[in-house]
Amino acid sequence: MILTVTPNPAVDVTYVVGDLRRGESHRVTSVSRRPGGKGINVARVLHALGEQVAVLAPLGGPSGDYVADALAAEGITVLDVPIDGETRQTVTVVDGEATVLNEPGPPMTEAEYAALLAAVEAALPHASVLVVSGSSPAGAPEDLQARMVSAARVAGVPVIVDASGPALLRAVEEGPSAIKPNAEELLEATGSDDVLGAARLLAGRGVGCVVASLGHEGLLAVTTGDCWRVDPVPGVSGNPTGAGDAAVAGLARALAAGHGWDAAITEAGALGAAAVLSEVAGEVDLAAYRRFLLGLHAVRID
Amino acid sequence: MILTVTPNPAVDVTYVVGDLRRGESHRVTSVSRRPGGKGINVARVLHALGEQVAVLAPLGGPSGDYVADALAAEGITVLDVPIDGETRQTVTVVDGEATVLNEPGPPMTEAEYAALLAAVEAALPHASVLVVSGSSPAGAPEDLQARMVSAARVAGVPVIVDASGPALLRAVEEGPSAIKPNAEELLEATGSDDVLGAARLLAGRGVGCVVASLGHEGLLAVTTGDCWRVDPVPGVSGNPTGAGDAAVAGLARALAAGHGWDAAITEAGALGAAAVLSEVAGEVDLAAYRRFLLGLHAVRID
Repeated sequence: MILTVTPNPAVDVTYVVGDLRRGESHRVTSVSRRPGGKGINVARVLHALGEQVAVLAPLGGPSGDYVADALAAEGITVLDVPIDGETRQTVTVVDGEATVLNEPGPPMTEAEYAALLAAVEAALPHASVLVVSGSSPAGAPEDLQARMVSAARVAGVPVIVDASGPALLRAVEEGPSAIKPNAEELLEATGSDDVLGAARLLAGRGVGCVVASLGHEGLLAVTTGDCWRVDPVPGVSGNPTGAGDAAVAGLARALAAGHGWDAAITEAGALGAAAVLSEVAGEVDLAAYRRFLLGLHAVRID
Repeated sequence: MILTVTPNPAVDVTYVVGDLRRGESHRVTSVSRRPGGKGINVARVLHALGEQVAVLAPLGGPSGDYVADALAAEGITVLDVPIDGETRQTVTVVDGEATVLNEPGPPMTEAEYAALLAAVEAALPHASVLVVSGSSPAGAPEDLQARMVSAARVAGVPVIVDASGPALLRAVEEGPSAIKPNAEELLEATGSDDVLGAARLLAGRGVGCVVASLGHEGLLAVTTGDCWRVDPVPGVSGNPTGAGDAAVAGLARALAAGHGWDAAITEAGALGAAAVLSEVAGEVDLAAYRRFLLGLHAVRID
């Protein structure tokens, strides 16, 4: 089973309106709600591909119940760490453009963070890969993701981290199997102005592979010894939200199957492109994914 | 007890953000939630004034539970008509200006509408005044408010309707004690271009008193025989949201006490102005209300 941890889950609400005008009242013509948060999106993509997957997340209040119930209804195993605060929501207002309002996560107590880590440790013996994905709630300990990486290494389970800023740097110190920053996160975390140099810097600190998503320039996989690149699928356009999460799902799947990093970024690139074709984060166009996989090849660079 | 019916209640969510920019992502710096909907706002104002009040509303799902629990925690009696759909939310994004996103209400079945009307009929023997306030859920029967007015008349209970469009016109046919359209709603419902003429037209169809809120021009009370006007409180500015609901609370209170329409619109004007001073719909500045009441006088016009 691939275990995904979402430290800061959400109910993702999407409103369709005519034209969003600041200072005015709008009739919402369509409302949709779904469980959200990056680790949850990763899990939904893996589930769609037929992988055994479990979602581990702190959940609280009526919206936390909603997330647990909705994932269970999709057939996804939920390992719920109950918290006192209420699970946040995000609101995306779509009027042609997408305007996003992100609530901060509910504050969590030290005891709740300890329970979250204990739940990860308890689930690790059943996991083939651990994925830790997305932001932390406001006020979270900076080493939250790092402690999960450390627990996975103790358990001998490969671990992928998708985080940013100080939480990413702390996680890197514990030697995760892979991290998946985008170019901006990579440059910001390292203070470098060169993506390849920044990836090599972090690989040199003990990360198995730094997978950098470069948007229109595809994906880069950098280890201490090797460097591969996969071009983007040509002509794919649509909704980039969730493409990074689909790419992480591809990495997790490849890692669970014991594939090399060249195959892993090919799978990540194909899934990321297939996610761009879907209107919903956490969903992929499976037929497109299989087609894209045939056309993509990782190329070794300098 | 004053009974308020809210056919389309909501959870009112307020987000504070830096600057709202279409097409961008925003970090929400402050989140607040409270029970919303016009009849609920009316009830909260009456409760703050020490009146016995009950909120009757169709409520469903986790957000319906939230509305019931939050009102009960304020000490307000809730007469809950359970529905299958989930109670809607509204989102107001505050960045200096207020940008409002109104979800439509959940669809209700015929049986649920029948249960709503039966609950109103069951509560009427305990009510001194009935207030029916706010929009209907999408797909509601056009005569929903009208049937509540009819039930109140059968029970001998004075009834105030705050609605608009066809629902208002249907309610007017049943002879409510008062309606409280704003100038725009009055002109739209009648097709007239003259506020006083439109108010007289509806008064002539059997409404006890047409109370029209004219914003910066105060309030007008029109019966078949008389017409009064009360000027706005000078120099009051702030948040106009909820001012109409506070004015309806003033009318309901005056009606329960057996006051005349001149006293009723004075109370309505003072409460409306006191609501403008509060940042939150459903709350009023009670000290300001008492001060304003001393300075306002209804004047008979032509």
